[in-house]
Amino acid sequence: MAADISKYIDILNELDFSDMYENDFFLTWEKTDDELKAIFTVADALRELRENNVSTKIFDSGLGISLFRDNSTRTRFSFASACNLLGLEVQDLDEGKSQIAHGETVRETANMISFMADIIGIRDDMYIGKGNAYMHQVTEAVREGYADGVLDHIPTLVNLQCDIDHPTQAMADLLHVIHEFGGAENLKGKKVAMTWAYSPSYGKPLSVPQGVIGLFTRLGMDVVLAHPEGYDVMSDVEDIAKENAKKSGGSFTKTNSMEEAFKDADIVYPKSWAPFAAMEKRTELYGNGDMDGVAELEKELLAQNAQHKDWACTEDMMKLTKNGEALYLHCLPADISGISCESGEVDASVFDRYRVPLYKEASYKPYIIAAMIFLSKQKNPQATLEELLNAAKPRKVQ
Amino acid sequence: MAADISKYIDILNELDFSDMYENDFFLTWEKTDDELKAIFTVADALRELRENNVSTKIFDSGLGISLFRDNSTRTRFSFASACNLLGLEVQDLDEGKSQIAHGETVRETANMISFMADIIGIRDDMYIGKGNAYMHQVTEAVREGYADGVLDHIPTLVNLQCDIDHPTQAMADLLHVIHEFGGAENLKGKKVAMTWAYSPSYGKPLSVPQGVIGLFTRLGMDVVLAHPEGYDVMSDVEDIAKENAKKSGGSFTKTNSMEEAFKDADIVYPKSWAPFAAMEKRTELYGNGDMDGVAELEKELLAQNAQHKDWACTEDMMKLTKNGEALYLHCLPADISGISCESGEVDASVFDRYRVPLYKEASYKPYIIAAMIFLSKQKNPQATLEELLNAAKPRKVQ
Amino acid sequence: MAADISKYIDILNELDFSDMYENDFFLTWEKTDDELKAIFTVADALRELRENNVSTKIFDSGLGISLFRDNSTRTRFSFASACNLLGLEVQDLDEGKSQIAHGETVRETANMISFMADIIGIRDDMYIGKGNAYMHQVTEAVREGYADGVLDHIPTLVNLQCDIDHPTQAMADLLHVIHEFGGAENLKGKKVAMTWAYSPSYGKPLSVPQGVIGLFTRLGMDVVLAHPEGYDVMSDVEDIAKENAKKSGGSFTKTNSMEEAFKDADIVYPKSWAPFAAMEKRTELYGNGDMDGVAELEKELLAQNAQHKDWACTEDMMKLTKNGEALYLHCLPADISGISCESGEVDASVFDRYRVPLYKEASYKPYIIAAMIFLSKQKNPQATLEELLNAAKPRKVQ
Repeated sequence: MAADISKYIDILNELDFSDMYENDFFLTWEKTDDELKAIFTVADALRELRENNVSTKIFDSGLGISLFRDNSTRTRFSFASACNLLGLEVQDLDEGKSQIAHGETVRETANMISFMADIIGIRDDMYIGKGNAYMHQVTEAVREGYADGVLDHIPTLVNLQCDIDHPTQAMADLLHVIHEFGGAENLKGKKVAMTWAYSPSYGKPLSVPQGVIGLFTRLGMDVVLAHPEGYDVMSDVEDIAKENAKKSGGSFTKTNSMEEAFKDADIVYPKSWAPFAAMEKRTELYGNGDMDGVAELEKELLAQNAQHKDWACTEDMMKLTKNGEALYLHCLPADISGISCESGEVDASVFDRYRVPLYKEASYKPYIIAAMIFLSKQKNPQATLEELLNAAKPRKVQ
Repeated sequence: MAADISKYIDILNELDFSDMYENDFFLTWEKTDDELKAIFTVADALRELRENNVSTKIFDSGLGISLFRDNSTRTRFSFASACNLLGLEVQDLDEGKSQIAHGETVRETANMISFMADIIGIRDDMYIGKGNAYMHQVTEAVREGYADGVLDHIPTLVNLQCDIDHPTQAMADLLHVIHEFGGAENLKGKKVAMTWAYSPSYGKPLSVPQGVIGLFTRLGMDVVLAHPEGYDVMSDVEDIAKENAKKSGGSFTKTNSMEEAFKDADIVYPKSWAPFAAMEKRTELYGNGDMDGVAELEKELLAQNAQHKDWACTEDMMKLTKNGEALYLHCLPADISGISCESGEVDASVFDRYRVPLYKEASYKPYIIAAMIFLSKQKNPQATLEELLNAAKPRKVQ
Repeated sequence: MAADISKYIDILNELDFSDMYENDFFLTWEKTDDELKAIFTVADALRELRENNVSTKIFDSGLGISLFRDNSTRTRFSFASACNLLGLEVQDLDEGKSQIAHGETVRETANMISFMADIIGIRDDMYIGKGNAYMHQVTEAVREGYADGVLDHIPTLVNLQCDIDHPTQAMADLLHVIHEFGGAENLKGKKVAMTWAYSPSYGKPLSVPQGVIGLFTRLGMDVVLAHPEGYDVMSDVEDIAKENAKKSGGSFTKTNSMEEAFKDADIVYPKSWAPFAAMEKRTELYGNGDMDGVAELEKELLAQNAQHKDWACTEDMMKLTKNGEALYLHCLPADISGISCESGEVDASVFDRYRVPLYKEASYKPYIIAAMIFLSKQKNPQATLEELLNAAKPRKVQ
């Protein structure tokens, strides 16, 4: 273990990530390559320590605030696990139990919950143009509070999924891929198919496909985004992906054929999402309180989805991939044909074959979040890792 | 205190409980006498340490996951207290807030919440044939996850009440009895009346009477199960009770007369429950989504209950017991005649006279749960107890 | 920092607050001046330590139970922050998830949740004659439990808002004022206007104005309570205020003119509340289950409120205050005209000008609650503060 930690520290010593200190994490493409690499490295280091029963608590007390504006199992538990791993206690801001409806502004609430909060994690992914903007409002409010002497510290923010990106998911996905392929250097030239897939449910957020094309294009991979006509994602993120690909020596292409995307792919990520234009319309309808309109739109979207039941990750589709053995990714839960629905995103036999790697993929998320917190709270992360290693305080009495 | 802890360690040294390490707790009758004695001993030891302000934290960080599929006050707080006592943070899996409805399988959820979970506590007692089975699915899933390298540790499971047994309750009840009678050795030949009692509410779980007859029969006591005709418990558990009694030199008998059960009893446990057959039928009706059937059944059961209002722990009934002074047990909350309902399980004056012992009975539950966790997580519990004693870290600065 | 902590210890050495040990906090007027001063001093000391990254954990484990019978953001987070600061884990008694409806008495529940609880914080402010009484029932129950040997310790109670007082709010308000004016000694002769203000919402609790007049009158200030006719607060609390004023050399007067109250005021606290008589009536209606009556009353009260829209903290009103620069206080959230409602308690421009001091005012609450817990749990708080200072354990690894 000590040797591994030393290796991670050596890697960190080569990177410039000083801007992460006391900083937030909104979108992966707002971070430099060095910064993302620092997160992967710290995530691996924290995991190494934890798995060797070494305490990684850097907080003696302090709160991690979570605000989930959408249901969540794995992100909720990942955030709770990450906070606990570092010594923070999670306090959930349940808007139903709070007085937020009762005249509180975002600015006010943000400060009121932050007197002893080190980190704020927010999931707000349902409304286009809203979630990420809300997160910025929160962080601006607490920074203003700090500047004004209201807060004696800066609570930093972790985006647990917004309308634009799902950075903790995409980074967990990528760290999984890096380990599966034996290192980021081995990903150059690999083909990734981020494709739409049919689901009988409606209105799934766009942040996963957007997060993937915005991140995976940075490693010199050939990223293909595939979806039926009309299921476009945000064009801004497509532009990011194009730019990334150019810089990294990879490519970013689009197609309306799932087959084309799967052909010779090293990695496939078939997943349902709602068309961007429809999500925008829905946001507008909600904004106007037009619930009849929302119901109408939902019906339309389900009907539209149903025209594309052939967009499924079947055994035949898998055979098209590189040696029929592409790495199958999913953020989970998946809509599994014959299991969770009649027909869905993936064949039961395919899903089952990839169950172990899928669960491993998910296992990175707590460490990714912990690394984001760690890097935003430690001025000299290398020294702290060294300190934790040397202290060798058992996580659990054996 | 040091002398007491030494005494407990000496007791543990005489017992064989090595199989408890990294193991789950489902049913008391799946455990050996030595294993149950180890739990009682560790429970007493942890209590001795805590009451003498010695920290018993064996975890520096880590999560205790709770999943309550039925309302709960004391078991919920007992689990939270036990986790906190040992250094785990409770994270509640609130199925309403999670994505479980959204296609997640038990196997998947179990792994997703377990990346940093040391213990999983589940209450699932409402449906015959389901609760215990569900717990097994969870523990099989995480053991598979461990075998597959998804988890780096085995989260162990504590049954916080299933359809078959309520082991943390029955063991807290029994530890209370042991202390009241000055030692387990004094229980031989004592008469215990586990009897049905009238309640105006419907469908109370069978796990308490089943847990009691399955556990108390192991100590050489004469256990009588009494209920009106038709209020049978699971016959499998009755078989366990018979076998236990045979082995322990006690007896297990049944009667349809509350008076006969109370006659010369040393201990009485009058409590309402639903007939096993009715619970089975209800489970089936729910399974078929037949809500009219459920409502109909509820009406029938309430009417059936109402025919047995004379099954109450009155002052007159108490006079039948040994010297009129049997120890009255209840898992709480009780239906107290004239207090919580017009007529119920127990007279207000009887309940009131036993209030202090009843509350003490409840006070053992956090320590029983903590002992279960402790023994499943410590390879050498004696050494750890010694270590905690010697470290003598104050639980609270005085 | 060390010098400041020494200064706080010196102050504490001059005070007699020995009765606070193992004692509850219900109403400020049940506490001596020395006791309140001890709370302010410990609050400042804990803040000094925390802001200098020194751990203030006096608990290695233990639970802080919270019970909120009304929605809350800042008090909920303040309680959670205070518990966390001292090393307690918050466990929320959510009555919806518990079996309280199922026949549990207050006495029983209080003991059942307290086996490992060091502190119980309760908010129960909606029903006149009920909230404070409930808190007393809880504390009597656990003290009885302690006397009977059910509990091995006394969980102490912090009133997080009852029908009579909101002590953690009023004390946070006052500590803010003390710091703004450079010391409690500078408050003598200052004029405080506690005034009603219009709000489009209904039935706001009386505990804030009552808490303020019951506390601020103890410092030799001239406290004016202003409200439209019919919006009286509890006369018992007015009597307390009169008595306080007499003893402290200040004054307590009443008026039905907001202008008169604001005239030359050094401090203004304009805030809506419901008439005491109406709240009494509502409590009765709820008690009788007369929901039509409640709805009818609500309508009446809103209509009555609407007659007093001129009771607003406008720019013109502020000009009446001492040099037009009175310190504006509010417990938040405020009803801000044109922001959270069409017309409300305060002009947006006034609120905005005071935003920073308002947020600072709120920032004292976690420390006030922590000080209450600290003083109820430490026999020699001075020695403990000294110990924490000398240990200098970092709150966060830097």
